[in-house]
Amino acid sequence: MSTLPPIRIGLLGLGTVGGGTLTVLRRNAALIAARAGRRIEVVCASARDLAKTRKFDTTGIDLYADPMQVVDDPRIDVLVELIGGIEPARTLVLKALANGKHVVTANKALIALHGNEIFEAARSRGLMVAFEAAVAGGIPVIKVMREALAGNDIQWLAGIINGTCNFILSAMCDAGRDFLEVLHEAQRLGYAESDPSFDIDGIDAAHKLTILASLAFGIPLQFDRVYVEGIRNISADDVTYAERLGYRIKHLGIARQQAGGIELRVHPTMVPARAPLANVNGVMNAVMVNADAAGPVVLSGAGAGALPTASSVVADLVDVVRALTTDSENRVPHLAFQPDTMENLTTLDIGEVETAYYLRLLAADEPGVLADVTRILADGHISIEAIMQLEKDACTTNVPVVILTHRVQEKAMNAAIARIQALSSIRAPLNRIRVETLA
Amino acid sequence: MSTLPPIRIGLLGLGTVGGGTLTVLRRNAALIAARAGRRIEVVCASARDLAKTRKFDTTGIDLYADPMQVVDDPRIDVLVELIGGIEPARTLVLKALANGKHVVTANKALIALHGNEIFEAARSRGLMVAFEAAVAGGIPVIKVMREALAGNDIQWLAGIINGTCNFILSAMCDAGRDFLEVLHEAQRLGYAESDPSFDIDGIDAAHKLTILASLAFGIPLQFDRVYVEGIRNISADDVTYAERLGYRIKHLGIARQQAGGIELRVHPTMVPARAPLANVNGVMNAVMVNADAAGPVVLSGAGAGALPTASSVVADLVDVVRALTTDSENRVPHLAFQPDTMENLTTLDIGEVETAYYLRLLAADEPGVLADVTRILADGHISIEAIMQLEKDACTTNVPVVILTHRVQEKAMNAAIARIQALSSIRAPLNRIRVETLA
Repeated sequence: MSTLPPIRIGLLGLGTVGGGTLTVLRRNAALIAARAGRRIEVVCASARDLAKTRKFDTTGIDLYADPMQVVDDPRIDVLVELIGGIEPARTLVLKALANGKHVVTANKALIALHGNEIFEAARSRGLMVAFEAAVAGGIPVIKVMREALAGNDIQWLAGIINGTCNFILSAMCDAGRDFLEVLHEAQRLGYAESDPSFDIDGIDAAHKLTILASLAFGIPLQFDRVYVEGIRNISADDVTYAERLGYRIKHLGIARQQAGGIELRVHPTMVPARAPLANVNGVMNAVMVNADAAGPVVLSGAGAGALPTASSVVADLVDVVRALTTDSENRVPHLAFQPDTMENLTTLDIGEVETAYYLRLLAADEPGVLADVTRILADGHISIEAIMQLEKDACTTNVPVVILTHRVQEKAMNAAIARIQALSSIRAPLNRIRVETLA
Repeated sequence: MSTLPPIRIGLLGLGTVGGGTLTVLRRNAALIAARAGRRIEVVCASARDLAKTRKFDTTGIDLYADPMQVVDDPRIDVLVELIGGIEPARTLVLKALANGKHVVTANKALIALHGNEIFEAARSRGLMVAFEAAVAGGIPVIKVMREALAGNDIQWLAGIINGTCNFILSAMCDAGRDFLEVLHEAQRLGYAESDPSFDIDGIDAAHKLTILASLAFGIPLQFDRVYVEGIRNISADDVTYAERLGYRIKHLGIARQQAGGIELRVHPTMVPARAPLANVNGVMNAVMVNADAAGPVVLSGAGAGALPTASSVVADLVDVVRALTTDSENRVPHLAFQPDTMENLTTLDIGEVETAYYLRLLAADEPGVLADVTRILADGHISIEAIMQLEKDACTTNVPVVILTHRVQEKAMNAAIARIQALSSIRAPLNRIRVETLA
């Protein structure tokens, strides 16, 4: 790895996302340095209450009550703004740029309302401003639209971009409960604020849609042009009727190119039950982009929360680090990691791998076959989750048997299969499919 | 926009992906230049049969029968390799690097088997090699893993990364048909090669998994360590039994960090019917990455085809162009487009937007109400897709009525709603939800 000095960060805000960012930067410090080519070091941070006990370690970080002290700290290369809201965030970010610092922010309201001004300030000084965490938390939708779809004419995009709304609508749909009841539960679980209007009236989603539409169509940020409608008027009846019609109700941000202009709108929307966005539930977010070459691309994942948002903040930091050191050693490395950090880790033989199994066998219709098979599995310490004996084959007297097992190492399963296959009552090669829950 | 000269491209191969790439570069030339900061110009290309009639325009491009003439053309800045296979692709790419050219390739076999050698050749000369199109066509999984998840410790990934296998398994599942029957259909539709073994025996998926595992874990490319199993042994019965157990069968590439080492495996896998990957059907691809900070991120889209693959090739070209000109004007622009190319396009008022509608009304249980309502809709040229009259409210004599309309402009719907609301037989504010098929 390069011997460049670390990149030094000043952090505004030690709340949920600030704490998550510190946690990720420390926990994955070696991995991040191996990918970025330099270490990323937090030298100072601001917090409203310095005396507060925190669940994360701030050792070695200078803490200031006044955020301007972070912005003016001459040691920092990059300011990470995680306090949210318009002021003082706007003033602090503009001052950091005036001081020659790059900026990473998770602040969607700030970008949606003052991005044009902030980007101009950055551009005139040759500085970077990165804001992946401002939209859809840990889902890299900004990078995908800005870079991966750069060859496309984007026709439309639609996103579930507010986790609170999606949690409420999903719960109403699953349990047939009414809006207010679910809202109160969301507040208890911390998925909705005590004043939830910002989320459930659609303002937050409109901030994010403003940003996505600008990235898609090359138009300035213009929050005031977005039509906004929240979810207060959706009743349990609407959810039920939608389901009977084959639809689900989702709160979507939609931006679309039309002949006459660009649609910018946030509102509850009925979508067919089999549409990709219909099956994104709970606090998950998803964005679907319909692009002329790539076709429909769907990205889904955690739209909020400490660590997912931190994942995007750190990705932006790595982008900044790589761009600051664009000699050929420090560009985005071909295989994600800097070449001299690649490790030849052990790869497991398939025999060492553990999965659950589906087994299908064709057995003679005679007593004792199932007992023999289950005995062999028990001998191999393989436990059975389900067993189905199926209808007899019409032409023969053979019976198909299907077995679902719990997780077991492949070599143990192979040994059991060999013994089962050797039983005289087994009539055809056993078929085996590995089962993964992917969770 | 900058006045830098265009970046000049030499293209190897004018088949499906080569043609798609030319089409996208020409059709979206202005958009691409607005995003990249420079124009991208194809100056020469090679094809096996120069006399062949092609569906795309090659005007102004020098065509060579010998690919080495493209590689040695002194005008080019970047070689785009789209011929596939190991040789002569490997020799041509290494020669291009020796000539000081950057390389963009869609060749998964070449990267999986010879990437270590190619990247070293590029690195020693300070050149870029980009290969987004090598995995999952138009889905930007390489960029996401290499850049967007750079802050994460990746625990595992699982992908539907071969469209032929997914098409066959999806069709077997939908129609209860047997493997060979569906394979022949896939061949007729052009979704499977006349010699399909490369796809259905899992080799192609194993090449892609090799690349993804390296990006995830910082290990060298090692195709020979991947356990590979195809889909020939899956029967219609297996698909049926899986469904009865609550599962779907998918052909997955899986890479996972375990205590003892890294699992690398490609095989048919049963996954719960509600898992995200279970519902990715047909020729679509999807990759699910489970990362310690971001959580589960799922990307899905078109995994193959001329234009989706071209989308990734062009994205790589834009990355190269932006990296070649990393003054502050030509970094990835904040809002995807170069600032002076942003347009203040018209944004549509919500009244101009066209959607379908769900209307819920509470009507007095008396004759003529439905006639009045449907008359008002007909007057507004609003056609009805479905109408449901529901059970009477227990405490009153009011009847809920739900109407699903076809698409209509919002202002026409608003006018109709105002008239409906004014009917004396309507008992409560009408509730209206917009309906989008997202297709």
